Amino acid sequence: MQLQQRCAGPQGLTAGRQRVRGAFRPAMDRQQTVRVQANVSTGAESFQIPAAPDLIPDGAWKKVEGGVCAAKGFKATGVYASLRAAGKKADLSLIVADEPAVAGGCFTKNVMCAAPVLYCKDVLARKKKVKAVLTNAGQANAATGDQGYEDAVNCATITAASLGVTPDDVLLMSTGVIGRRMKMDAYIKAIPELPKSLGSGADDAHRAAVAITTTDLVSKEAALQVTIGGVPVHIGGMCKGSGMIHPNMATMLGVVTCDADVEPEVWRGMLRRACDASFNAITVDGDTSTNDTVIGLASGKSGAPLISDAGSADGKTLEAALTALLQGLAKCIAWDGEGATCLMEIEVTGAANDADARTVAKSVAGSSLAKSAIFGHDPNWGRIAAAAGYSGVQFDQADLAVRLGSMQLMEAGQPLAFDAKAASTYLKETCAVHGTVNIYVSVGKGSGKGMAWGCDLSYDYVKINAEYTT
Amino acid sequence: MQLQQRCAGPQGLTAGRQRVRGAFRPAMDRQQTVRVQANVSTGAESFQIPAAPDLIPDGAWKKVEGGVCAAKGFKATGVYASLRAAGKKADLSLIVADEPAVAGGCFTKNVMCAAPVLYCKDVLARKKKVKAVLTNAGQANAATGDQGYEDAVNCATITAASLGVTPDDVLLMSTGVIGRRMKMDAYIKAIPELPKSLGSGADDAHRAAVAITTTDLVSKEAALQVTIGGVPVHIGGMCKGSGMIHPNMATMLGVVTCDADVEPEVWRGMLRRACDASFNAITVDGDTSTNDTVIGLASGKSGAPLISDAGSADGKTLEAALTALLQGLAKCIAWDGEGATCLMEIEVTGAANDADARTVAKSVAGSSLAKSAIFGHDPNWGRIAAAAGYSGVQFDQADLAVRLGSMQLMEAGQPLAFDAKAASTYLKETCAVHGTVNIYVSVGKGSGKGMAWGCDLSYDYVKINAEYTT
Repeated sequence: MQLQQRCAGPQGLTAGRQRVRGAFRPAMDRQQTVRVQANVSTGAESFQIPAAPDLIPDGAWKKVEGGVCAAKGFKATGVYASLRAAGKKADLSLIVADEPAVAGGCFTKNVMCAAPVLYCKDVLARKKKVKAVLTNAGQANAATGDQGYEDAVNCATITAASLGVTPDDVLLMSTGVIGRRMKMDAYIKAIPELPKSLGSGADDAHRAAVAITTTDLVSKEAALQVTIGGVPVHIGGMCKGSGMIHPNMATMLGVVTCDADVEPEVWRGMLRRACDASFNAITVDGDTSTNDTVIGLASGKSGAPLISDAGSADGKTLEAALTALLQGLAKCIAWDGEGATCLMEIEVTGAANDADARTVAKSVAGSSLAKSAIFGHDPNWGRIAAAAGYSGVQFDQADLAVRLGSMQLMEAGQPLAFDAKAASTYLKETCAVHGTVNIYVSVGKGSGKGMAWGCDLSYDYVKINAEYTT
Repeated sequence: MQLQQRCAGPQGLTAGRQRVRGAFRPAMDRQQTVRVQANVSTGAESFQIPAAPDLIPDGAWKKVEGGVCAAKGFKATGVYASLRAAGKKADLSLIVADEPAVAGGCFTKNVMCAAPVLYCKDVLARKKKVKAVLTNAGQANAATGDQGYEDAVNCATITAASLGVTPDDVLLMSTGVIGRRMKMDAYIKAIPELPKSLGSGADDAHRAAVAITTTDLVSKEAALQVTIGGVPVHIGGMCKGSGMIHPNMATMLGVVTCDADVEPEVWRGMLRRACDASFNAITVDGDTSTNDTVIGLASGKSGAPLISDAGSADGKTLEAALTALLQGLAKCIAWDGEGATCLMEIEVTGAANDADARTVAKSVAGSSLAKSAIFGHDPNWGRIAAAAGYSGVQFDQADLAVRLGSMQLMEAGQPLAFDAKAASTYLKETCAVHGTVNIYVSVGKGSGKGMAWGCDLSYDYVKINAEYTT
C-alpha cells in the first residue's frame, strides 16, 4: 500500500525531518506518529516521527546534519521487517563501515543482560575492529537462555554472509519485548535485502535512527564537525530510549560513528569516559534495562592524523567533541522521558573529584520527590538538599548551596529567603515549553564538577507504566 | 475548647483505638482524621487516627497491647504544644525510663542530617544509658545550622530539668518542616508540663504514638512478649513515616522499649541488626530523609537474667523478637506509603549471603517500574527480573526464578507460561483490600535470604508530592 499524504499534526509537523523547538509537548500523545508517505525502496509505508530538539552543549565544534552518516566511511539503512509487535514503523537497521572500523562498546551492568549484549562483549574482547552493527526493535532477546544466544549468533552470521564478512565483524543491538524469541523467519528474509538499501546520506542515517526507536516520541540523531591537524573530522550518532517503556524494557541504545583515525585502546577509553559523562549520567526512573548498549566506530577516513594519545591536543579535541555529542544524544533521552514535561539538568560543583560531583548530580536527578516537585512547579530546595545528602558522597552540610535557574535557594547549608512565586513561575514557564530546568548544587570548595540529567515525575509516567497489561 | 462527640467515619471508626483490617483504604483521603473527644489532661482536643494493621511476622512470641509502655519501667505521654504548622493533633511526646535504661540508636546516613540526629549521636558516643526521649512534630530542625543545634541542646536541657536529670540523659527526635527553627517559646512552655501527663498504660503509649505522626494515616505501635529464663519479657515500640511527605521530609522515627536486662554493646548490636532487617529494608520512594532515627531502650525491669552474649539462647530469643517487632513496625510504614494501595513484600533466597539477598529484595521493592506495574495489576515479571539484575549483586542469570503469590512466572532465567489473567486478578484483589503482594525471587543455590518491603506507585503518590507548594 502506497500512500502519499502530507499531514500537519498539532505542532504543524510535515513530511520529512523537522527540528522542533518551543511548544513541543510529546507527553500529550504517545500515539502521535504521522503516516506521511510511502518509501518505495523499503517497500513499506514509512512512519515519520519528529526529531528531538538540539541539546548538544556549545563548544569548539560545529553542529552538522547527517547522523551516523556524517562521518566518512559509513553507510546506513532502516527498514520494516515485520518484527514489531504492532505497527509498521521501520524496525531493523544496519550500519556498515566501508572498511573495518575501530570499535568500542559500553554495556548495561544488569546481571540479566540480553543475548546481544553478551554477544557484543564477547566479540569486542577478541576484536579491535568490526564492519557492521545490526539493530532490531520488536524483541529484546533477553531472558531467552541459550536458544536466544543462538538466535543472536545466527543473526550475526546471516548479516556477515550478506556483506561478505565473518560473523565476528558484526555487532548486534536489540530492543523490545523481553522473554520472547527473535522472529528468525523474518530475519532470514529481511537481512539479506538490507545491503541493497544502504546509503551514505542524511536520509539513510535518519531511516536507521527511526528504525531503532520503540515508543520514543522523537528520533534522536546528531552530528558534529571538529578540526584535527587542520582536517575536518566528523562524529555523528543516533540513539533511542525514553525510560523503561511499554512493554517491558526501556533500553537505551546508541551508535556513534567517527572518521578520526584513532588507536583502538585510545578510542575505547574515550568512549567509556564520554559514556560516563553522558548516557551514564541520565536517569528517567532509575530502572536500568537488560539491553543498554552504546557502540562507537571510528573509520579513520577523515584523513586527519592518527590519534594515539588521549592526552594530546588532538586527543582532547576529539574527546571533548565526542563527549558533547553523546551528551546531546543522552539529553534527548531524558528530555523524552515518559510523561516528562521538562528536562532537568543538574550541575554540581565543589566536590572532591568529578566522579563524586556526578554521583551527587545523579542522585538529585533521580529523586522521586525532587522530580514530583518539579512537575508540580514547586521550588522544593529541601528535597534537592536531601537527595544530595543521600547520594553516598560525603561533604560538610554547612557547605551546601542550591540554586534554581538564577535564584539562590540555599547557602551554607541553610535556606535563604527567596521569591517563591517567581521560582514557581520559572518552573511553570520552563515546563510549558518542555524546556530545561537548571539546578545548581555546590557541595564544597573542591574542584570536582559534574552533571546529570533527568526529567520530572508526572501522572503520565504512572499512567504509561501502570496501564500496560502483560 | 472541649468537645465530646462520637463520630463514625467511613470505615466505622469510633473513639478510642481501632484495629482496622480488610477494606481499609487510607490512600483515599489523607485529611481523614476524626475529631472525637477532648482529652482533659492535655487541655486540648485530641485527634484520633486509626491504628495500622498488625503486620508482625508470626514466631515464638505473643502479641500484646501497650506499645512503648508494654515493657516494665517506662512511661509515656503525647500532648498538643502548638508546634504543628496546622491542626491540633498532639505534636510533642516524651518517653521516660523510671531508671536510666541501656540505650542504642540507628540514624540516617544522609549527609544533611538534622540537629537532633547530630545531638543523639554525640550523646550515644559518650553514654550507655539514658532516661528519656523527647520527640516533636512540626519542625525537623534540619538545615538550621549552629542555631538549630543550640535549639536542640536547649530542648534537651529543659527536658532534663523537668525530670531532674542532666541533658546527657535525654535523646531527641524531630519531624516536620525543614529549614525552619524550632518554636522555642512553645517548647519552653510545654516541656515542663510533660511529666504531669506521663503514664504507663496503653492509652499513654498511644498518645505518644499519635504525637509523633505527621501525615501518617494510621498510628503505628506494636508489642510482643517472649520468655527469657522462664520470665516474661516485653518489647514494644512506636514509629511514624509514610514516605517523604508533605511538606518536605518523610522522616521515619521509631522508639522501641524493652524490659530485658542486656549489656549495652549487646543491645546495640541487636538493635543495629534488627534495624537492618526492618527499617533499613523498606522503601517507599527511595528518598532517605535528613531525620530518620530509631532509638532502643532496655530497662532491665523484667527480672529476666542478664543477656551478655547475643549468641546465647536467650540472646537469640530476644533478638528474634526484637527483629520481628521492628519488622512489624517497619512494614506499617511501607503499607502506609503515600498513595499506596498495597504492601509489597519481596523475599529473596539463594544468594551468597543474607546481605546480598536483602540488597536484591530492596532493589525490587524500590523499582519504579515494578511498583507502577503492581499498581496497574500487571504481573510484570520482566521488570522484577530487571530490578533484581541491577541491584549490584552478582548472580548467574540462568538461576533467576520469580514467583508472584502462588504463581511461578520465571524459572532458570526465562519466563514460564502462566495464567496472566489469574495473576492480574491476584494483584487486583490484594490491592482492593490494601493487602500484601508477595513476590519471591531466587537468585541461585546459596543460603543467603532476605526480605524487603515497599508499596506500589500510584497517581496519588504524584498528586501528594507534586501538589504541595513551598
